[in-house]
Amino acid sequence: MISISVFCLLLCTGASAFRFEELTQYVNTHQDEFVETLRQWIAVESDSSDVTKRADLHRMMDMTAEKLRLIGGKVEMIDIGTQTLANGSSIDLPKVVTAQFGDDPSKHTVCVYGHVDVQPAKMEDGWSTEPYELTDLNGNLYGRGASDNKAPVLAWIHALEVYKALNIDPPVNVKLLIEGMEETGSNGLEQMIVAHKDSFFSAVDFIIISDCVWLSKRPALTYGTRGNCYFCAEVEGPKNDLHSGVYGGTVVEPMTDLIGILDKLISSSGQILVPGIREAVAPLGDEEWSRYQDIEFDLQSFKQDIGLTQLMYSNKVDLLAHRWRHPTVSIHGIEGAFSSPGTKTVIPAKVIGKFSIRQVPDMDPAVVEKQVTDYLHSVFAKRKSPNKLNVTMVIGAKPWLADPKHPLFDAGKAAVKRVFDVEPDLIREGGTIPIARTFQDVTGKSIIMLPIGGFDDGLHSQNEKISRRNYIEGTKLFIAYLYEVSQIKKY
Amino acid sequence: MISISVFCLLLCTGASAFRFEELTQYVNTHQDEFVETLRQWIAVESDSSDVTKRADLHRMMDMTAEKLRLIGGKVEMIDIGTQTLANGSSIDLPKVVTAQFGDDPSKHTVCVYGHVDVQPAKMEDGWSTEPYELTDLNGNLYGRGASDNKAPVLAWIHALEVYKALNIDPPVNVKLLIEGMEETGSNGLEQMIVAHKDSFFSAVDFIIISDCVWLSKRPALTYGTRGNCYFCAEVEGPKNDLHSGVYGGTVVEPMTDLIGILDKLISSSGQILVPGIREAVAPLGDEEWSRYQDIEFDLQSFKQDIGLTQLMYSNKVDLLAHRWRHPTVSIHGIEGAFSSPGTKTVIPAKVIGKFSIRQVPDMDPAVVEKQVTDYLHSVFAKRKSPNKLNVTMVIGAKPWLADPKHPLFDAGKAAVKRVFDVEPDLIREGGTIPIARTFQDVTGKSIIMLPIGGFDDGLHSQNEKISRRNYIEGTKLFIAYLYEVSQIKKY
Repeated sequence: MISISVFCLLLCTGASAFRFEELTQYVNTHQDEFVETLRQWIAVESDSSDVTKRADLHRMMDMTAEKLRLIGGKVEMIDIGTQTLANGSSIDLPKVVTAQFGDDPSKHTVCVYGHVDVQPAKMEDGWSTEPYELTDLNGNLYGRGASDNKAPVLAWIHALEVYKALNIDPPVNVKLLIEGMEETGSNGLEQMIVAHKDSFFSAVDFIIISDCVWLSKRPALTYGTRGNCYFCAEVEGPKNDLHSGVYGGTVVEPMTDLIGILDKLISSSGQILVPGIREAVAPLGDEEWSRYQDIEFDLQSFKQDIGLTQLMYSNKVDLLAHRWRHPTVSIHGIEGAFSSPGTKTVIPAKVIGKFSIRQVPDMDPAVVEKQVTDYLHSVFAKRKSPNKLNVTMVIGAKPWLADPKHPLFDAGKAAVKRVFDVEPDLIREGGTIPIARTFQDVTGKSIIMLPIGGFDDGLHSQNEKISRRNYIEGTKLFIAYLYEVSQIKKY
Repeated sequence: MISISVFCLLLCTGASAFRFEELTQYVNTHQDEFVETLRQWIAVESDSSDVTKRADLHRMMDMTAEKLRLIGGKVEMIDIGTQTLANGSSIDLPKVVTAQFGDDPSKHTVCVYGHVDVQPAKMEDGWSTEPYELTDLNGNLYGRGASDNKAPVLAWIHALEVYKALNIDPPVNVKLLIEGMEETGSNGLEQMIVAHKDSFFSAVDFIIISDCVWLSKRPALTYGTRGNCYFCAEVEGPKNDLHSGVYGGTVVEPMTDLIGILDKLISSSGQILVPGIREAVAPLGDEEWSRYQDIEFDLQSFKQDIGLTQLMYSNKVDLLAHRWRHPTVSIHGIEGAFSSPGTKTVIPAKVIGKFSIRQVPDMDPAVVEKQVTDYLHSVFAKRKSPNKLNVTMVIGAKPWLADPKHPLFDAGKAAVKRVFDVEPDLIREGGTIPIARTFQDVTGKSIIMLPIGGFDDGLHSQNEKISRRNYIEGTKLFIAYLYEVSQIKKY
């Protein structure tokens, strides 16, 4: 990581050189076009977890590249190889799109990272509108990927588009790196970053990620994310599903075994039961405690927004700490069992439990993989089941933590103040941006997360949205941030 | 139940009056037509558990009625009312089809029960062939509903068709009662039987059900079935699914709660943990023990057929007893959680665990419902979860048990001997024919189950089939059985 002492922030005392009003005015008058582009992007079912949608995902990368070329970027589509599927076959990974705007050596160079793949979504999951048709309703733009991460990527593109439309040179050189595998663990991207460390990344000073959301209605700057270890625990028994009447009582059912081991992952009070995990977590210091205490966060409205009467913790600091800097286990579902409405009297032959552990400093995914695998096998062994257990960690994304005193964050505060006229919250993120830690480890560059998504955007959920305000004012924030970063002085 | 002493079996010493050879020859030469009819029936997706398939189910009942009219039956389609759905709306139940062949008061009258609805089936469940396209492969006829219960119903119809084609009066009057809701608990049928007790059923002497399978390659007669209490345990938390990164650690997840309570239903060694259930089971007597001991049943090939190396019990009597006359719990799956291939980092908002308890004499579904509901609520209460639990029993079908010494079973032995030249096994059935017990309780008639399905037909599973041999020889068995029943003498 570049040492903070190398930089200082040169406060912008006269904004005469920065035609901010003109730029934001352009955003205001062209906002319907920006929404229209978002509509086209949301229409593409770029679900990276579903290999049957891979053609859509490739098309999404092509559309991204085309859009960047249209606004004058020097675009490359980088082949990052293939993905091996569970059945042993392999398919092409979506290419990574890079683009460069400006190469003035007297200016800073920022690299903006984003992704255009999305989580799965189907009407029957409970969406009120078609997930792949943008629906503009009451100031919100609904659609899968609206906030995660298509609108933020487009806001960055539009920010550059506005500079170009007004014939203003962006105050910093900008590189974009847009991938299509984020939602399944950024498969192939780490190798690409390593391979391009001394080329694409050599001139980069700072990395900006806008793949997260605010904590409340107040804008935020994000200095940490949790990692994610995603596991599949497969229990295999008979060679076919069996009739539960004809065979029930004679066979040891894989589903009973799976439920039995999943139940041993986490207690009803939220305590992770896998030995060694809690012990690895960095202790919460006084300074960090105070920082959480200062954050504007209303538990009551948090509860109301998600429709709960009681949370896992009833005070702000505990809740924020367990959201951001403690690990947790979530059981997402079971593949192979009966999951439709109605009744089916089946003994499923092979069931795959899916769960993930959000991990934090100082946990390590490789260690977590071993801890969980060993533990589940030992729990399973006690059942003396004749069925076969296979535990695999299919995603192992590391957490990321930055120093919120870095000048990048001061620039962020200045940009937020300029656009929203408030001080941002300094927050961490419970979710994972798998590549943040890789950027840090491989390139050594400093990173900031600069979200524009709203706290209630419903990422990964039904009815995902971004508000028109956040999309449009977020575009202005990025315009302003490019300027504020340009004011960071090199010694 | 009609007392055994009222009947005795008049052994058929001369078969001169029974033109069996001629009848079976007709079956042999027309078997391809019979397979073709089965193909047409399997093509109808008459899944009674899926309300979106209700039109197909109505069509299936119409086709059944039409076929029965074609072969000279006096057919009625009986309206049995509507079904109330979870959302409060209601839809028509499939009509019950009845048909009468002959009303000679000097003959016995048998009532044959069957059903033409099926379990759900989709290619992605792991079928090798399209479940709703009959596939004739290596002597087997694959398709959903092939064995359960379309081919047996057709075999009965063909048996009558053959008598008619050769202009031979069937030796007994035959009534058929074909329903379309068996797979979901015979909704509406009990009321219909009660209502028609003194009309349709008044002249009926015996009831025959062919909705089960042999135990091995040896034909079998069945004298008992288990009941089925099917439960939905719904745990509801936040109003929408949540991102497991953003919210994990802050909310008490419904999926964790559900896994926690499902895990308390049954131990890893197969012991039901719901208080009171095991205590209600009738003890296994010496005579019953001996009967199981005599049955030809090879554990080794049973294991091989389903692809297991170890069963829940390692000796024949224990295994058969737990298959037929002890209750068991099967967990079928979870609705509302992530169930597709791939990864999704979701906290499901509302999940419905589906499990069933196969119950046996002397358990009672109403008591089981209370035992399970009370127990799950008490287990859930200990978790101190803010989520809401709702437990409902959606199917409550009673077990059935007959006396295997009744003349109906002697007639069955004679028919099996005539067609297959072996002694049948006297067996019970682990599965449920929900209406068997109702027939017994409401009409007081004696019942036999006369299966023609093979032990490896894969009922409710992927690749369900019936062998061409069982379908065709089964048709002959029914032809013979009508004769053998006619030889039961009334005093």
